[in-house]
Amino acid sequence: MSETARLTGVGVGPGDPELVTLKALRALRDADVVAHFAKAGHVGNGRRIAASHIPPGAVELPLLYPVTTEIPKDSPAYGAKIAAFYDDSAALVAAHLEERRSVAVICEGDPLFYGSYMHLHVRLAPRYPTEVIAGVTGMSGCWSSIGTPIAQGDDVFTVLPGTLGEDELARRLGDADAAAVMKLGRNLPKVRRALDRAGRLGCAMYVERGTMADAVVMPLADKLDDDAPYFAMVLVAGWERRPRSGEARDRAG
Amino acid sequence: MSETARLTGVGVGPGDPELVTLKALRALRDADVVAHFAKAGHVGNGRRIAASHIPPGAVELPLLYPVTTEIPKDSPAYGAKIAAFYDDSAALVAAHLEERRSVAVICEGDPLFYGSYMHLHVRLAPRYPTEVIAGVTGMSGCWSSIGTPIAQGDDVFTVLPGTLGEDELARRLGDADAAAVMKLGRNLPKVRRALDRAGRLGCAMYVERGTMADAVVMPLADKLDDDAPYFAMVLVAGWERRPRSGEARDRAG
Repeated sequence: MSETARLTGVGVGPGDPELVTLKALRALRDADVVAHFAKAGHVGNGRRIAASHIPPGAVELPLLYPVTTEIPKDSPAYGAKIAAFYDDSAALVAAHLEERRSVAVICEGDPLFYGSYMHLHVRLAPRYPTEVIAGVTGMSGCWSSIGTPIAQGDDVFTVLPGTLGEDELARRLGDADAAAVMKLGRNLPKVRRALDRAGRLGCAMYVERGTMADAVVMPLADKLDDDAPYFAMVLVAGWERRPRSGEARDRAG
Repeated sequence: MSETARLTGVGVGPGDPELVTLKALRALRDADVVAHFAKAGHVGNGRRIAASHIPPGAVELPLLYPVTTEIPKDSPAYGAKIAAFYDDSAALVAAHLEERRSVAVICEGDPLFYGSYMHLHVRLAPRYPTEVIAGVTGMSGCWSSIGTPIAQGDDVFTVLPGTLGEDELARRLGDADAAAVMKLGRNLPKVRRALDRAGRLGCAMYVERGTMADAVVMPLADKLDDDAPYFAMVLVAGWERRPRSGEARDRAG
């Protein structure tokens, strides 16, 4: 028992358990309670990544998303259900903090970058001592695993959700030097059309589970539209001035 | 001696030596040669971050940027001098690889995200076995240290160099939900004007050395224009729907 109420958002990186930082490791080892988000009946990605770093016997607090497949994601009913879930989750975490326990919340990737943790953070950080431990993002893991320099110098880099409309995607892809398009899933055909309209389809890479042993990587042009998971992403590298392999060979030899 | 030629770009994160990953640690410990970029007469930031993780007696290969203060950065002469420096640096690394040594190149932040390492990568990766170890970016380190959720859900997030013109900065800041503006330095007054024109000055945070003990953090509105270092950044959080502290207190209690 630490006897100190403390909330820590712990970024555990994109998937490879070795891409966890020393700081995250220490936070997991020192916590009285280790919380993690998951779908009911599943082990969350964050929990799986951190599995070997959670001390045996640690008190775990799974925060289980309500099953929502029956409600459209853009409906008010869905929004209300999710907000209630985050309220309830914050109350569960707060109950431990009120007992002066330290709570580490495992976050896939980087906690404050498109992560569920931030919903706890905004509810609890005003009331309890809180620390956020930055993590390697999923997109960094992906462009590193495929060895693609994503942006340099004065490049403008943009992160786009695949949920945007096709016109907006095409406009924004044409306006950025480099881009990562997240949330593919059923949006893949639309994202492909938008990349084509922006003249960027030829250099787009498709990446699934970038830092895992079962990673899937290919030019988007070779990827069928039928089966992209929601957490796959498309990367468009900005470095068009970089030398092609042959030039690199000549110049570096 | 590993007796295997291998180039590894090692992301060591944004500054806090504890934000180094286990994978980076292992790469530094296993390398025959540890290379790092720096200005002549200085210890580079990457080298400083990794200092406690480099084994005693490791062979180090400093890659020293040519002194270029006398040449404008946008001139062809500057470009040629820098390209020659990267060619020479790649040749120095290649000489070790040809002797079947493994070379780890220390990279502040994430190697393929606006990092110098990518100039070696494009010259050498076509010729030698190469691996890139993703790191925590400087911007993740900054928004984590100030506890500011930067982007969520369907937010569009953009990274902008402060070197862009004021009109373009204002347009892009108005077009993004969330943004990080890098390369401040003498661009700070222009960045401030662009944020003001885009209606985002009020929520802009100024961050210097975000994850270090001597971090400087304040609302940009409170920061004078006179002394921003080049590597300071401005963060504009996208999460405008997030509850204010009082609401969070009410809802989470």
